[in-house]
Amino acid sequence: MIIVLKPNAPIGVSEEILQLIEQAGLRPLHLPGKERVVLGALGDERTLGRLHLENHPMVESVKPVLAPYKLVSRELHPEDTVVNVGGVPIGGGGFTVIAGPCAVEGLDRLRATALAVRDAGATCLRGGAFKPRTSPYSFQGLGLEGLRILAQVSRELGMPAITEVVEVADVDAVEEHADAFQVGARNMQNFRLLEALGRSRKPVVLKRGMASMVEDLLLAAEYILSQGNPNVILCERGIRTFETSTRNTLDLSAVPAIKQRSHLPVLVDPSHGTGVRDLIGPMSKAAAACGADGLLLEVHHDPRSALSDGAQSLFPDQFAQLMRELEPFAAAAGKRMSAAPSDPAGRP
Amino acid sequence: MIIVLKPNAPIGVSEEILQLIEQAGLRPLHLPGKERVVLGALGDERTLGRLHLENHPMVESVKPVLAPYKLVSRELHPEDTVVNVGGVPIGGGGFTVIAGPCAVEGLDRLRATALAVRDAGATCLRGGAFKPRTSPYSFQGLGLEGLRILAQVSRELGMPAITEVVEVADVDAVEEHADAFQVGARNMQNFRLLEALGRSRKPVVLKRGMASMVEDLLLAAEYILSQGNPNVILCERGIRTFETSTRNTLDLSAVPAIKQRSHLPVLVDPSHGTGVRDLIGPMSKAAAACGADGLLLEVHHDPRSALSDGAQSLFPDQFAQLMRELEPFAAAAGKRMSAAPSDPAGRP
Amino acid sequence: MIIVLKPNAPIGVSEEILQLIEQAGLRPLHLPGKERVVLGALGDERTLGRLHLENHPMVESVKPVLAPYKLVSRELHPEDTVVNVGGVPIGGGGFTVIAGPCAVEGLDRLRATALAVRDAGATCLRGGAFKPRTSPYSFQGLGLEGLRILAQVSRELGMPAITEVVEVADVDAVEEHADAFQVGARNMQNFRLLEALGRSRKPVVLKRGMASMVEDLLLAAEYILSQGNPNVILCERGIRTFETSTRNTLDLSAVPAIKQRSHLPVLVDPSHGTGVRDLIGPMSKAAAACGADGLLLEVHHDPRSALSDGAQSLFPDQFAQLMRELEPFAAAAGKRMSAAPSDPAGRP
Amino acid sequence: MIIVLKPNAPIGVSEEILQLIEQAGLRPLHLPGKERVVLGALGDERTLGRLHLENHPMVESVKPVLAPYKLVSRELHPEDTVVNVGGVPIGGGGFTVIAGPCAVEGLDRLRATALAVRDAGATCLRGGAFKPRTSPYSFQGLGLEGLRILAQVSRELGMPAITEVVEVADVDAVEEHADAFQVGARNMQNFRLLEALGRSRKPVVLKRGMASMVEDLLLAAEYILSQGNPNVILCERGIRTFETSTRNTLDLSAVPAIKQRSHLPVLVDPSHGTGVRDLIGPMSKAAAACGADGLLLEVHHDPRSALSDGAQSLFPDQFAQLMRELEPFAAAAGKRMSAAPSDPAGRP
Repeated sequence: MIIVLKPNAPIGVSEEILQLIEQAGLRPLHLPGKERVVLGALGDERTLGRLHLENHPMVESVKPVLAPYKLVSRELHPEDTVVNVGGVPIGGGGFTVIAGPCAVEGLDRLRATALAVRDAGATCLRGGAFKPRTSPYSFQGLGLEGLRILAQVSRELGMPAITEVVEVADVDAVEEHADAFQVGARNMQNFRLLEALGRSRKPVVLKRGMASMVEDLLLAAEYILSQGNPNVILCERGIRTFETSTRNTLDLSAVPAIKQRSHLPVLVDPSHGTGVRDLIGPMSKAAAACGADGLLLEVHHDPRSALSDGAQSLFPDQFAQLMRELEPFAAAAGKRMSAAPSDPAGRP
Repeated sequence: MIIVLKPNAPIGVSEEILQLIEQAGLRPLHLPGKERVVLGALGDERTLGRLHLENHPMVESVKPVLAPYKLVSRELHPEDTVVNVGGVPIGGGGFTVIAGPCAVEGLDRLRATALAVRDAGATCLRGGAFKPRTSPYSFQGLGLEGLRILAQVSRELGMPAITEVVEVADVDAVEEHADAFQVGARNMQNFRLLEALGRSRKPVVLKRGMASMVEDLLLAAEYILSQGNPNVILCERGIRTFETSTRNTLDLSAVPAIKQRSHLPVLVDPSHGTGVRDLIGPMSKAAAACGADGLLLEVHHDPRSALSDGAQSLFPDQFAQLMRELEPFAAAAGKRMSAAPSDPAGRP
Repeated sequence: MIIVLKPNAPIGVSEEILQLIEQAGLRPLHLPGKERVVLGALGDERTLGRLHLENHPMVESVKPVLAPYKLVSRELHPEDTVVNVGGVPIGGGGFTVIAGPCAVEGLDRLRATALAVRDAGATCLRGGAFKPRTSPYSFQGLGLEGLRILAQVSRELGMPAITEVVEVADVDAVEEHADAFQVGARNMQNFRLLEALGRSRKPVVLKRGMASMVEDLLLAAEYILSQGNPNVILCERGIRTFETSTRNTLDLSAVPAIKQRSHLPVLVDPSHGTGVRDLIGPMSKAAAACGADGLLLEVHHDPRSALSDGAQSLFPDQFAQLMRELEPFAAAAGKRMSAAPSDPAGRP
Repeated sequence: MIIVLKPNAPIGVSEEILQLIEQAGLRPLHLPGKERVVLGALGDERTLGRLHLENHPMVESVKPVLAPYKLVSRELHPEDTVVNVGGVPIGGGGFTVIAGPCAVEGLDRLRATALAVRDAGATCLRGGAFKPRTSPYSFQGLGLEGLRILAQVSRELGMPAITEVVEVADVDAVEEHADAFQVGARNMQNFRLLEALGRSRKPVVLKRGMASMVEDLLLAAEYILSQGNPNVILCERGIRTFETSTRNTLDLSAVPAIKQRSHLPVLVDPSHGTGVRDLIGPMSKAAAACGADGLLLEVHHDPRSALSDGAQSLFPDQFAQLMRELEPFAAAAGKRMSAAPSDPAGRP
């Protein structure tokens, strides 16, 4: 339920009503807006009905949250959320490019790619240490060693690091070494993992599953928020269809469809979304044009030698050119390209 | 097969080789480019092999066309094709917006919408007279009467008209009243219709089928070109997937994927592609950003009273705002917004 | 609307009410059942409301047809329809196997295959004269010559013939030479063709489109019935999905789903549905098990030399073995294998 | 690689060659067949090449395993695998029905359903204690308490129990209380969970993911086998498509497609595969007809009060009728309905 207070409601009224909500066994939410205070109550709506809050003299209206996801919905939280990833704000008026190799393959190799993407304007570094691979015989990532390398390069270059977590038991290690968790498409409905991340306060980049509707993605995000972690960033990365000219079908209409329904920032991953190097540039521009808050891009200093996803990794030169070309599209969409964190040491 | 002549090959050589190709029972193609002359031969490649053209002193190379579509492929025709629709060039450096109602509903109603979209910058008018509808009990269009109304408004306002043709028997009537044929998604593989349109020289806007791969679309276009009509414009309009927040899933990556493979211009129809009014604006901008040559948009002067597709028709005000907002995206993609035909009377 | 008469309603009442319906500008339907008479009225339901038929002393109830398809629905027509194809009943308690080559390739070749499938127990012969092919450079069928060959072999062997029609202009020729029309997946929503077939009385085998929902298929059938032809047989032949181990995904659950909603017979085409020879046998048995009324199977006397669909054509021996193995599955589903028409000369 | 020994090869030769394989750093496999001994070597095939086993006098042939999955493939293991679930063999010549509620909802409720399904002929009991639900606000299962209830009813009734495991941390508890693990569609590519189950020896029922190709499923199974657990049972449960008349599209052609490629038993879950109670019967019969080794069915003693999946749960009467009707279909497919374990106490 959403309880909208009257414009002149004194501060004590919020507290009074939140207490009533809590006493009724519901979860109280305080959602101060620019113009007026909105309170929320999560739980059995019949219980709330018995409180008859609509009769309170300082309450303007009481209405249900229609969406099945509550904390994620714009109904409860009309303003855009900005998530801080190691000093880089994601969402709001900025357009953030997170780039790096598919997998961390070693210190020198990661450093080479990271330098290239930082020089071209990427503000965050991506790189997988735990790689979920379709075949058990494919390269599975360097694990903890990969996390350490990622953290070192991240520190050296002042680029917040984002890396995938695939299992509850790894949450602490990833939290220690990275600035944001990534949940991959295959784990979007690994609800235990989502709950574990909901108990952290580090940002989570949640990728859409290959067979997931927009509503499924928002409900998966609700798992994280409902455990207390508001720092969720959604990511469109393509769904599975019959089309074979691309690895997946990048569903860009999900970006404005999510923006209508939710206040959370939305990234696009055209590397996995297309799986074809030459399509990444055009689809990156299209992502900026339709309102995405940034990109997740695979770049490798030498794609021909990459241990995974070589065919969809950009060469450093291609990435640098794309960054130059992206700027007017971001500008036309009312966004400015994100800058590096001015004080990476001061990361939260 | 593609036969590339040497840069210094005299004109007579082309004629000589084309004659050899024809005598061998193959279809000869003359494809003069900016830098050198390329000849083509369509048919059984073994026959061609027996001519041993690679031994001709003025031939630089002979190579097969690898794509299953030949005339449609960039291999045979590396430069972008520009198709002239009633004086409006589609493709090349322009970005063309074709707008109008889903269906022609009457003279006054069409005129009202047409005036609104022309004033906002649309250069071509769309409107269906023959409507393929899922249910036999839905409004099926005004038929021939609808064609006449469309032609009248088109003349009055100097806007070339595009309308759907659904049956071979209607090809002549549509050709008489409109400046371009549209083939809808449901007829993309109505091969008899494609062949009939291939015998015309009027442009054809060919929409991708709901279950068609990019390759299927290119092969459907090949049916038209192989009958002699080179004036084909492709159109991405969404494919069917499991996602329910949109009517179809607009596959924008098809735009650059087609551009890689083919020289034909590509439009995007975000009205059918999303089926949701509020998503049309963002997806129109994304289409411009990823390299489309223009848009096909449903606009109605009063969507609430529309006989079909009301929920996905833009209000005139929304369309006008979108046209203003599109311009910087088209510019960033290296295209300028198309202007109205300076001399619509002089249409070819 | 459905108007159910009381059990004791005299015959004249039906006529009286049907006349009232017609006078109100609606389409009257007479649907005599085993236990009582049901009348139908198609058209604007508000008009019907003004007749207040529920007040008529011999009317038991008046209720709307909820399904968007009317004549096709079980609501209006609760009993199974049996369609007679050249003397072979399809639907009801029989299980009918229609077999033959993908395309008619010549008299001797068709005769060889037809003899083989007849000897193994097939009662109807399939074979395409007009072939809709994805590429314009593939074999397109023998056309009218193919129709003549099909008719000759059909007569010689006493097997009713079914062949595809792809264009309104061919309807008369196909009607003359074949016992039933087939509408292919690509033409399921070629509504003009459906309407033309609705003006015939020859049976129509209507295949589900590759991106069509069950409801779309039933609405396509409604186009035929609403023009007056009640002899429609539906056919599940696979939809397009991401799976690549089969050519299409055969959606057998469509069979009971259609049976719930409609009274029309349902065939299954596992040849196109799987595209893999070794899967056709198991899926044929599964089709019988889930309630299909028969099969449409591609068999070729020499698949290795077939001009189309060789990889999914059964060898005659495989077909004969499958026919033997099918019998207990049909029996377990309460059906008996169809026999050849006892008097093919007496075909309607 | 597969190393086929000559028919007369003495026993010591196997041991000698397996040792050579192990010394080369590869994983040796001993695969004694009915007619001759086959050895396998998993790992870098170039290493194996250096052993030149093809020159060994007792080796008949050395050939690569072409499939990307090795231990799962029929190439390496031509004979059908039978997996023992608490005394009930799954695979081989039996047809096994595993039935029970979606979720364990309490001792009395589970006992009521279990009695009903046992009386009707089900040999194993299913019931979820850990429920992965799309929304965090849906019933999530009784957890450890649910496991205990399941184990108690399983013991009381002599029905081996199968239950879902969703997280590595729960593997031990599930192993203690159940006779087989179930991995749900959402976790099919939760590779850490698969690896943990690979270190157990309890059977694993692995369900196909909603966007997973047959090959993906086989590779997921390979994760389990490659860790040492050969007791894997695959389960087709429907994929996500555009069709809305069913919850998922049950892809029965996956059953024979898997059987071609793999030796593992295959179950079908028509409850989730259709999501519609009335379609479960026909699709169960179809599953038996196309070669499945059994069914996973949701039955509830009172579906109207079920806490989850009520709409797709069979009533006990429907289940009993289905069991009677299934028998002739299983028989026609060459299988006999599984009987209860004669000595459940003697379960391995």
